[in-house]
Amino acid sequence: MKPILTAFKASPDRGRDLARDMPVRWALEEVGQDYDVHLVTFEEMKQPAYLARHPFGQIPTYEEDGLVLFESGAIVLHVAEMRPGLLPDEARARARAIGWLFSALSTIEPPILDLQTAVLLENDKPWAADRLLLVKDRIRARLNALSKRLGDADWLDGAFSAGDLMTIAVLRRLRASGLLDEFANVATYVARGEARPAFQRAFAAQLAVFTAASGS
Amino acid sequence: MKPILTAFKASPDRGRDLARDMPVRWALEEVGQDYDVHLVTFEEMKQPAYLARHPFGQIPTYEEDGLVLFESGAIVLHVAEMRPGLLPDEARARARAIGWLFSALSTIEPPILDLQTAVLLENDKPWAADRLLLVKDRIRARLNALSKRLGDADWLDGAFSAGDLMTIAVLRRLRASGLLDEFANVATYVARGEARPAFQRAFAAQLAVFTAASGS
Repeated sequence: MKPILTAFKASPDRGRDLARDMPVRWALEEVGQDYDVHLVTFEEMKQPAYLARHPFGQIPTYEEDGLVLFESGAIVLHVAEMRPGLLPDEARARARAIGWLFSALSTIEPPILDLQTAVLLENDKPWAADRLLLVKDRIRARLNALSKRLGDADWLDGAFSAGDLMTIAVLRRLRASGLLDEFANVATYVARGEARPAFQRAFAAQLAVFTAASGS
Repeated sequence: MKPILTAFKASPDRGRDLARDMPVRWALEEVGQDYDVHLVTFEEMKQPAYLARHPFGQIPTYEEDGLVLFESGAIVLHVAEMRPGLLPDEARARARAIGWLFSALSTIEPPILDLQTAVLLENDKPWAADRLLLVKDRIRARLNALSKRLGDADWLDGAFSAGDLMTIAVLRRLRASGLLDEFANVATYVARGEARPAFQRAFAAQLAVFTAASGS
């Protein structure tokens, strides 16, 4: 049985691939695992049948042989453990790659989510402009630390790993803000990830959903 | 060689155990693994020697036999993989427990961090009071979903796991806000975690640092 992901039937981002099925699709492409996609509407995601699979009513979920999993970080890790290609064999290097996977989601992403909240949910508030400056500075602090660690390396710790995949997926949320371009080696690192054939296939697959939906 | 953690030499929380060494100490106590602690100052955490171990200059780091790891979620997972007690043996149950570990840090914690930012860093801003209402409602949405999933179960998915450990560690950050008490089964769940002997030992160990530092 091929794994089945859930993804948005329609999304405000119109296939710019910032939805959280993207890192999972990318991981599956990196390890060469075929998958099916089940598209869901926002209404379906709030119904009991979906909430039984994902208590927070979000995408993606992942299903395979009686396993139902949610949380994109956990799914990427599961895929990386299932087939070679995203985690080093050596135990210490493997633990460090998983460290970067957590770091992407727990340390790098929270201020980036705060920026999205500021722009999408609080843009009409009287504090929007003043507060945006604070939020952006918190992101810069993370990018500065990441930039120093990365230096002129291709990837964060040796070969490309699930940690790089998730870090790059998270950083791509900054594209519209222009912040990424303030740290040249980080911007190049993101572009290096986007140039991978597996990324390109995942990007095309998620885009096709929206192209088909718009009838173009 | 015993694993070595880093933890704050002095912390604003004065041993209320909201620092991120706490879930790692708790995990080590659950699996019965002795450890040593190396205390660091805020100044030391920003120096090159420390940044080589943790690029974002935070605590905890974890060191063991040539492995240096950062990110509390990754360290808890590493400890859980090292010794039995925090992950089920059965593969699907194990994947789901890791799912809750990610969920704690990627889905439940971000709005809670936003509350801490609002209270600690933006309390003097003109928007502080109005915005706090929005932030608290975002947390309530997460707690409501968690409450519905938990129901009257003791733990999130069968036996106590690394997923419960991290979820409870994250939820404890809400204690001062009173939000936890709005969801009785979630408050009881947190108390159930705090009553575990391993939690109590970890709590006492981190508190001892601050008791000793204050000379009392």
